[in-house]
Amino acid sequence: MDDGSGEGAMSTNNGVRSAGTERVWAALDSFKIEVPSWGFANTGTRFGKFMQPAAASTIAQKFADAAEVNRLTGAVPTVALHVLWDLPKGLGSVDEIKGLEAKHGIKSGSINPNLFQEQEYKYGSICNPNPEVRAKALAHLIESVEIGKALGSKDVSMWVSDGSNYPGTQSMRRRVEWMEEILGKTHAALGDEQRMLVEYKPFEPAFYHTDIADWGMALELARRAGPKAKVLVDTGHHYQGTNIEQIVAWLLHLNALGGFHFNDRKYADDDLTLGSIDPYQVFRIFHEMLSAKKDETAGVAFMIDQSHNMKGKMEAMVQTVVAAQEMYAKAALVDQEMLAGLQDECRLVEAEECFRSAFWTDVRPLVREWRTARGLPADPLDSLRTGRYLESITREREAANAGAGSSYA
Amino acid sequence: MDDGSGEGAMSTNNGVRSAGTERVWAALDSFKIEVPSWGFANTGTRFGKFMQPAAASTIAQKFADAAEVNRLTGAVPTVALHVLWDLPKGLGSVDEIKGLEAKHGIKSGSINPNLFQEQEYKYGSICNPNPEVRAKALAHLIESVEIGKALGSKDVSMWVSDGSNYPGTQSMRRRVEWMEEILGKTHAALGDEQRMLVEYKPFEPAFYHTDIADWGMALELARRAGPKAKVLVDTGHHYQGTNIEQIVAWLLHLNALGGFHFNDRKYADDDLTLGSIDPYQVFRIFHEMLSAKKDETAGVAFMIDQSHNMKGKMEAMVQTVVAAQEMYAKAALVDQEMLAGLQDECRLVEAEECFRSAFWTDVRPLVREWRTARGLPADPLDSLRTGRYLESITREREAANAGAGSSYA
Amino acid sequence: MDDGSGEGAMSTNNGVRSAGTERVWAALDSFKIEVPSWGFANTGTRFGKFMQPAAASTIAQKFADAAEVNRLTGAVPTVALHVLWDLPKGLGSVDEIKGLEAKHGIKSGSINPNLFQEQEYKYGSICNPNPEVRAKALAHLIESVEIGKALGSKDVSMWVSDGSNYPGTQSMRRRVEWMEEILGKTHAALGDEQRMLVEYKPFEPAFYHTDIADWGMALELARRAGPKAKVLVDTGHHYQGTNIEQIVAWLLHLNALGGFHFNDRKYADDDLTLGSIDPYQVFRIFHEMLSAKKDETAGVAFMIDQSHNMKGKMEAMVQTVVAAQEMYAKAALVDQEMLAGLQDECRLVEAEECFRSAFWTDVRPLVREWRTARGLPADPLDSLRTGRYLESITREREAANAGAGSSYA
Amino acid sequence: MDDGSGEGAMSTNNGVRSAGTERVWAALDSFKIEVPSWGFANTGTRFGKFMQPAAASTIAQKFADAAEVNRLTGAVPTVALHVLWDLPKGLGSVDEIKGLEAKHGIKSGSINPNLFQEQEYKYGSICNPNPEVRAKALAHLIESVEIGKALGSKDVSMWVSDGSNYPGTQSMRRRVEWMEEILGKTHAALGDEQRMLVEYKPFEPAFYHTDIADWGMALELARRAGPKAKVLVDTGHHYQGTNIEQIVAWLLHLNALGGFHFNDRKYADDDLTLGSIDPYQVFRIFHEMLSAKKDETAGVAFMIDQSHNMKGKMEAMVQTVVAAQEMYAKAALVDQEMLAGLQDECRLVEAEECFRSAFWTDVRPLVREWRTARGLPADPLDSLRTGRYLESITREREAANAGAGSSYA
Repeated sequence: MDDGSGEGAMSTNNGVRSAGTERVWAALDSFKIEVPSWGFANTGTRFGKFMQPAAASTIAQKFADAAEVNRLTGAVPTVALHVLWDLPKGLGSVDEIKGLEAKHGIKSGSINPNLFQEQEYKYGSICNPNPEVRAKALAHLIESVEIGKALGSKDVSMWVSDGSNYPGTQSMRRRVEWMEEILGKTHAALGDEQRMLVEYKPFEPAFYHTDIADWGMALELARRAGPKAKVLVDTGHHYQGTNIEQIVAWLLHLNALGGFHFNDRKYADDDLTLGSIDPYQVFRIFHEMLSAKKDETAGVAFMIDQSHNMKGKMEAMVQTVVAAQEMYAKAALVDQEMLAGLQDECRLVEAEECFRSAFWTDVRPLVREWRTARGLPADPLDSLRTGRYLESITREREAANAGAGSSYA
Repeated sequence: MDDGSGEGAMSTNNGVRSAGTERVWAALDSFKIEVPSWGFANTGTRFGKFMQPAAASTIAQKFADAAEVNRLTGAVPTVALHVLWDLPKGLGSVDEIKGLEAKHGIKSGSINPNLFQEQEYKYGSICNPNPEVRAKALAHLIESVEIGKALGSKDVSMWVSDGSNYPGTQSMRRRVEWMEEILGKTHAALGDEQRMLVEYKPFEPAFYHTDIADWGMALELARRAGPKAKVLVDTGHHYQGTNIEQIVAWLLHLNALGGFHFNDRKYADDDLTLGSIDPYQVFRIFHEMLSAKKDETAGVAFMIDQSHNMKGKMEAMVQTVVAAQEMYAKAALVDQEMLAGLQDECRLVEAEECFRSAFWTDVRPLVREWRTARGLPADPLDSLRTGRYLESITREREAANAGAGSSYA
Repeated sequence: MDDGSGEGAMSTNNGVRSAGTERVWAALDSFKIEVPSWGFANTGTRFGKFMQPAAASTIAQKFADAAEVNRLTGAVPTVALHVLWDLPKGLGSVDEIKGLEAKHGIKSGSINPNLFQEQEYKYGSICNPNPEVRAKALAHLIESVEIGKALGSKDVSMWVSDGSNYPGTQSMRRRVEWMEEILGKTHAALGDEQRMLVEYKPFEPAFYHTDIADWGMALELARRAGPKAKVLVDTGHHYQGTNIEQIVAWLLHLNALGGFHFNDRKYADDDLTLGSIDPYQVFRIFHEMLSAKKDETAGVAFMIDQSHNMKGKMEAMVQTVVAAQEMYAKAALVDQEMLAGLQDECRLVEAEECFRSAFWTDVRPLVREWRTARGLPADPLDSLRTGRYLESITREREAANAGAGSSYA
Repeated sequence: MDDGSGEGAMSTNNGVRSAGTERVWAALDSFKIEVPSWGFANTGTRFGKFMQPAAASTIAQKFADAAEVNRLTGAVPTVALHVLWDLPKGLGSVDEIKGLEAKHGIKSGSINPNLFQEQEYKYGSICNPNPEVRAKALAHLIESVEIGKALGSKDVSMWVSDGSNYPGTQSMRRRVEWMEEILGKTHAALGDEQRMLVEYKPFEPAFYHTDIADWGMALELARRAGPKAKVLVDTGHHYQGTNIEQIVAWLLHLNALGGFHFNDRKYADDDLTLGSIDPYQVFRIFHEMLSAKKDETAGVAFMIDQSHNMKGKMEAMVQTVVAAQEMYAKAALVDQEMLAGLQDECRLVEAEECFRSAFWTDVRPLVREWRTARGLPADPLDSLRTGRYLESITREREAANAGAGSSYA
């Protein structure tokens, strides 16, 4: 409940909707989240992949899956694309993507260049001491920008996996300068409506130093690149104990938050489903978004970045979107005005109870009501299970997905 | 909801109670948690103390405060005692304590020796290379056991803060042997009904090595000491990322869990209020308790070990007990049978939804109903605020509590 | 220097060897470390593999590489085998291995079953709720034991990667019982000279709970299995901040340490080269070994478990063995008697200086001298670079190793 | 050795000094490090203080102690002052300080305001929602600036301990704005030669959020305040696993590094002596300093911030300065040119060996030689022990230092 009283009642059925309920409906109406194309494909750990019969392997299949998630939840208008995997012909693949957009009624979302997979990138891509490799990486970035333009996509999401594994083996300093140069050139290529989102990650696949290791580094690089560059916060990419919502608050304050990659983790960067380990943290992050000024949060992109190697692909993705909607609804229940007053007076326990009363409120009936009113399935996971889509793609794809998945030996 | 359907409805008002509701009431009826006497006194960090006017400084005041928490929540039949602070005359203070028990209707709980405060313990107490210091520590432990006997208290809670700050400065190996000897002698002094609870802590106040650093060490020492020795799990005393509920599961399996010290933390050992940072973890720990066999959990003591230097002492303690009751009620909602079935079939998403559906259910209305039925205040925090107790102790104690609290300069 | 004086001089050239020098030579003569066959093969992260032209792909190549490391360092009499990768025909591959032993003059070391790679193990191997999968896993373990017998190998190294990714999806408790049963049956199959080493790991590839997560769990399982089961400490498998040398001290005290898997890490389990991130920790671990009683350390196996996806395979392995020898030599320099005296008197700074004076001593000239006296190359890394082996295997293998290494898309 | 050959020999006695030796002497001649006045006083943990008979309690004693450390090491020209403890009369204490400077031949170093000790700061100082408290904090900051001017001290070191313990209890966002305002006003008061150093710390004494939690926040605040504000890196104030030397590299690149507070830690912020837990990290940090451009490192202040509650105060401080000199000497041995070449060619193992060969070189004989040539005691710790200073202050101060040290009960 949003009155801090610990009542927990949600007055949705007494004729007049409460202010909290109004906020929840407005929040749900506005809530959109992007799914990643690679979230529907088989992935694994360094110890191997477990192959799922219904996993998608073509971009057509990934579009279809994403569209089904959108049909079930009403919150997924876009799908993130991975250049190397989804547009194997680069710009030459754009027409195929446009066809899929038209067919499925969802659009291309962020464009994700790949700077980690090719053998040349062993010692880095845009930070590689070899200028030829850096040139190759820049060319790929520029092509990614052009793909974004051709698709009318807004964001190029930059994850630079560069780094080093051992002290002394690379000059962290000189690599900063190389990055600055290439990000600047990439920024220069952006169209008027495009943005560059700079992601940070403290480790993996680099284990001693990662060239863009934290939000401070990402922010500096984004600023140096230009005004269309913003910071991308991946919730799994932080040290243990980091207060992520505080980083969000700072980035909003600095007008530098571009978007989120959502997932959860317990130890390292485990790409678990959103809120599966620490749901209270998700609530707190959404609270920072909802308590900020409108102009600060305009344009902040919500994106899922998860790889479900144990859960069913479709099941996990629907579950994630539903969880995100519910957490967002909870955060919308916080009575901002009352909370601010209690904070001002340092009435700590009352402020905390006001805050987490919203978290404790069971929003599921309310979200179900909203779904029904919007013509959506009341229970998306149940609809997925009882519907025909899953069965049908399992049948169609299982032959292609048979075969061992180990990547180790 | 306990049916995994995501409904979230709690049928408490339709004439027939659901199975989930029955479990919640039974859980609440059985739920008891001990409060620490030192939770009502002024404490701080190494940078200083912030003095609260209503803080307790005498054992009489601490008993009174604990009794008030019990009056408000119905769940606090005992108060943990700290030998050095609460029984300054050792056995000679027992009569005073018995008088307070009679006066306030609550009993003495665990007896907590103090092996860290005196100057002799600079290099350790029961692990000190100096045999005279070890003898002094042993004598204090024996006296603590005798105090427990005299008070009819069941548990002696052993927190051994010994350790070292720098590699090479002490022999970790020899110190193990000294511990074993003294814990064995202490165990030998225990009465038939007494237990010794061995606590572990990875660091603080020792910063390089702590002699009892993890549950494995505590378990070995408990076993070596004897059958009345069990392990005490302080939820704040773990490395970042540790799966505490798994340790609980193992200790239950080994019939070696003696009890809990509850608190929460974000980084180090911060003694924050239970569930304030990671409420889902508390739920998972309670789930392990509730899903274990009855004989494994018999005798497991729930104790709060918190120091609230920012929140009001009474307010924080009532809030903590209420939070514990609510989490326990949520854990009681889990449909164990359904869950086990889904786990057996590795239906991961369904099992997870079944599990966390209980967490998402808003149990506050149900707990309020239970409180009223049991003749307890429906809203303990509200009763504390509107009642006279807090005002009265503030007035009585504030003169004594004035004065600076810094401990640093 | 071992006299605590901070002199730093190593009197190796003044006619009479110092006591420290004697200890170093004795330590180097006794120091043996096993290399893993998989350390010579191409590996990677979940984001892809970088292929090395000289990487080994057959067991014959791995034996040849290990033998070359032994030729250069004189410290590698055995190579660890991975059943699935190195003995694809199981017992049927034993003759081939014996032929390689004879050809290369090194022996088979620990036998490593594989419980993580096959699709059946998606939800666990020996902890899988499905009894058929557990039976398959047991059969593989028994075959691994038989392979060990046939090869005259002493240790079966058990890494059980089982676990779960999400709270509530599996019963941690029941899985313990399944493990106990299978480990007991495996132990029963061991020959008189065989041992079972139980490894622990807090996470990866399982991300919420790993069934054998810490040394306490490994120890309980080893004891339950039987007297030939011991604990295997992988230095990379601990939470941040864990005092690994203390765990070593405890396992030695309990006569339960079976061996080590050496590697280093900065964040997670990164399999970096030994001592590359925290060399002082390696020194402290070796110090615990060297300061323990002889019967406690008898039979403790030193094994490398590293995957070098950036450094050259051969180069990294030689570098690792050399680093291990140097650290061991440093630890041998500690004057145990003087140190114990200072520890007893709690002369902290002097004890610390006595201890780390050994660490600060540059043992490289001394180790070089020892190498020459033993007929080994004075500088193994230099010999590797200037010798023909590396060039020759690069030429022979590069065709087979060409091709992309990504495992993600 | 600086030639990457693994020789380890330091040619100091063959008539011609090696280039490495030249660099070491130059480095030692330029190396200066500030000691904190509070490092000589009794301190403790939240569980109590262990009182040392020789601990300083007056500023006169602290100056004397610092001067003795300087006499022994030749590297400590300044002592950091803590306004509240060392200048109890604020500006009125300046004359006394000037007298001590003249008497002891060392100068006042950084001025450290105190924003954490007084009861008003319970809910924060410059971030307190109460404008009166913020005004009080600002006044203290301005006075600290004036003290700095009066003493001719360069730096005001700002540690803002503000934060909150529980989610929802304070608005992180609004507190940023309050900080910006006050830091701006403080900056405006700075004299031409003065600087403001903004320190960051992820936790303690605030446990949920600290208002200046990381280098990114400190940098933003410093920039907003003005050009005389720089970032202060306390080596103990980072999350587990953070690559501190990379942050140093970035701050140097951004011309924003003001100085260091040196200490070491294993888990949290433990204020252990420099390099006592991870000496290789200190070496890497110094390497970043020594490999940067001269104008980037000009003005970067080296300061010790340690509280030795176990080691003897004087002993620990001398030990720390000696350790710092030795680590700096090791870092000076790195052959920058050779290293850069190997890094450029991605010859990883060779680059690493070149780098850590300097770390493995035993510089103690060389540093001893330098000390003697500069008229300093060859072995400062030994001189401290055998000299009269320690004995004399112990005798003079022990009566005042008797008495219990607990701060808890």
